[in-house]
Amino acid sequence: MKSDLDTLMQVGKLDAIVVLGDAEHNPPMYYFVGGGHVTGAVLIKKRDQAPVLFYNDMERDEAAKSGLDTRSLNQFDLEELRKQANGDMLLATAMRLQKILADFGLTRGRVGVYGHTEFSSTFGMMLHLQKLMPEVEFIGESGMDSIFLRAMETKEESEVARIRKMGKVTTEVVRRVAEYLTSREVRTDEVLLKEDGSPLTIGDVKSKINLWLSELGAENPEGTIFAIGRDAGVPHSAGNPTDLITLGKTIVFDIYPCEPGGGYFYDFTRTWSLGYADPEAQALYDQVHEVYNKVLDNFDLNAPFKQYQQMVCEYFESKGHKSQLNTKAPLDGYVHSLGHGVGLNIHERPFSGLQAGDDHRLAPGVVVTSEPGLYYPEKGMGVRIEDTYWMRPDGKIELLAEYPYDFVLPMKKWKKK
Amino acid sequence: MKSDLDTLMQVGKLDAIVVLGDAEHNPPMYYFVGGGHVTGAVLIKKRDQAPVLFYNDMERDEAAKSGLDTRSLNQFDLEELRKQANGDMLLATAMRLQKILADFGLTRGRVGVYGHTEFSSTFGMMLHLQKLMPEVEFIGESGMDSIFLRAMETKEESEVARIRKMGKVTTEVVRRVAEYLTSREVRTDEVLLKEDGSPLTIGDVKSKINLWLSELGAENPEGTIFAIGRDAGVPHSAGNPTDLITLGKTIVFDIYPCEPGGGYFYDFTRTWSLGYADPEAQALYDQVHEVYNKVLDNFDLNAPFKQYQQMVCEYFESKGHKSQLNTKAPLDGYVHSLGHGVGLNIHERPFSGLQAGDDHRLAPGVVVTSEPGLYYPEKGMGVRIEDTYWMRPDGKIELLAEYPYDFVLPMKKWKKK
Repeated sequence: MKSDLDTLMQVGKLDAIVVLGDAEHNPPMYYFVGGGHVTGAVLIKKRDQAPVLFYNDMERDEAAKSGLDTRSLNQFDLEELRKQANGDMLLATAMRLQKILADFGLTRGRVGVYGHTEFSSTFGMMLHLQKLMPEVEFIGESGMDSIFLRAMETKEESEVARIRKMGKVTTEVVRRVAEYLTSREVRTDEVLLKEDGSPLTIGDVKSKINLWLSELGAENPEGTIFAIGRDAGVPHSAGNPTDLITLGKTIVFDIYPCEPGGGYFYDFTRTWSLGYADPEAQALYDQVHEVYNKVLDNFDLNAPFKQYQQMVCEYFESKGHKSQLNTKAPLDGYVHSLGHGVGLNIHERPFSGLQAGDDHRLAPGVVVTSEPGLYYPEKGMGVRIEDTYWMRPDGKIELLAEYPYDFVLPMKKWKKK
Repeated sequence: MKSDLDTLMQVGKLDAIVVLGDAEHNPPMYYFVGGGHVTGAVLIKKRDQAPVLFYNDMERDEAAKSGLDTRSLNQFDLEELRKQANGDMLLATAMRLQKILADFGLTRGRVGVYGHTEFSSTFGMMLHLQKLMPEVEFIGESGMDSIFLRAMETKEESEVARIRKMGKVTTEVVRRVAEYLTSREVRTDEVLLKEDGSPLTIGDVKSKINLWLSELGAENPEGTIFAIGRDAGVPHSAGNPTDLITLGKTIVFDIYPCEPGGGYFYDFTRTWSLGYADPEAQALYDQVHEVYNKVLDNFDLNAPFKQYQQMVCEYFESKGHKSQLNTKAPLDGYVHSLGHGVGLNIHERPFSGLQAGDDHRLAPGVVVTSEPGLYYPEKGMGVRIEDTYWMRPDGKIELLAEYPYDFVLPMKKWKKK
């Protein structure tokens, strides 16, 4: 939780943190500022002190909405600094940041730097700053272990409420998609038809998903996976817009929207087969569903997350599938890990890979996905089931948005002969 | 243009470039890959050679859609490297990148690093890599001058076609908003009413904007400015969702959507006053409109962009307003610069600030905004007019999307008594 940051800074031996960039679509900045049209900002937090946000004047009112202590970047004369730097803008911005840090008494020690930015210019500035301030050690932290990822790992109830709300939006969109698909007329070659009689494509369905997400107050900055056939068999194939929707093929529908402006995400997957199922796909589905339930039945507060990845690998291997347990980077079978934390990042701590540390645990307050799957691209099929759970401080495990687990969705206007 | 990259690398003394991160919402990567669900990728381009994209296996089919030479990152055993690195993931990824670079014969020279990423982890990796490869100089370039911004500065016709299409989407959404607003019933206190009789808010209008953008196949990752009264007087105030829409106040509507997944942007602003206008606001509007036309009449191919900023500052100062010409960081009057390039970045080269170099020119192929404005937050008013223009190779200046310049929008169901 955010209140852990000072302790995490102490453990990580950080005297201060600097967050750069915009308030939107930038998790570390959003964590403090809460979004809004604040761009190219600088946030400084010394250990055990409140953060201070430096804004550009045109965004002074937007910055004020953060409720933070705010100051204008325009108090530093960037043009004058640029002259001193012989026109080198990267050096000038480094000199400005040096002045800001000096105003906080930061002339030595360890400083972590964060923010979703264009790497090139920030890197160029930091190389100058490191030379300007040789007694400060500027630190970059791993996306697995940074103090932000560790603080964000456990959520306050107010954060979970926002994730839960995105879960309701998500499942409502999924419900509308199912209703739309199953209401379609079907051509003799088992292709679904639109209202105007033309074939329904992946692209058509994605347009509707985007429209409904927008209508319900969410956005999907990372897209949506709606993949059929072979594409369903490659976990991150997003689906080919011109592919036709047909009966009897696995459709993997993985949807991960967030609050507008880059707020909290939800993560959810269902796999469907319209009208009827290929028996081999049905068998895969049954195995995925069985192990999904097995994992859930065994979820224990504070258990290492990877212990469930081990369980799923062992289960699938016992059924004759490859997994990461005994195959390096398998291309079919169970090819990914079980789940991940969800918050301001769609993927965040705790992680469940077999190599993850024991500190990636189902600790009270974490919000995690469980998403076993089986993939056979050469057979044109793939299956994944995913929901998002909150490990509540009271020890209960809460499914954040309910939705049925039907694999075959019966078509209202079509019957198998 | 992309074909300029090799020359730009030569001028910038870069032996290779490395682009990191996702294909979406990451302009340098999108420039090569063209979007798609490709995450955590590495793209290497040696000077005078074609780029090579390294992907994660789960995204092999998405990567293949780029049409680039693609290779799997899984050929490098990250877990083994992590063991060698005593569990330090940043060092392990640096070792992997070292191997990739070595495979390209890159063991010395200058290498530029780019990509919209979480700075902290990329910085941590690069600090390791620089130590591992002391004979390579890793470079970060300014957001004003990087080889990418210079290549992207001039557009191919196919890129302009995509910007123009976003322009059509943008003006269609603006038309729908105008139609919706002017069709509203009005309360005796001049507040607009929704269909259900409750007051219409900024938040309601923004929901409609998002819905219509989505319906027309665009997204607005950076939000939309729809600001009334004082907020209209602060250029980057995005508008307070609970503010009511009322007659006779300036409304600044600045909309900058892009193709889904972080493709090409369009940038557009109109200022409206519903029903009637405050005479002082009308006078501001007339001045902004006059100088907008004056700039357009004087646009010359190849002229330095800042020469028009100078023209606008002089015009506004002659009318008694402050500008950057004689006031450092003014908070009212004309407080920003005239325009900027538009492409995969909403703000890119050429820039028009008075301090911009003469190389920021209206060269054939650039796509730029012209957006003069006047701001008086304490008087509760602000005005901006903005369109996006293409400096065509044939010397013509093309407005990429037409839209009327009316300031007062008459209300269909309300008349001034």
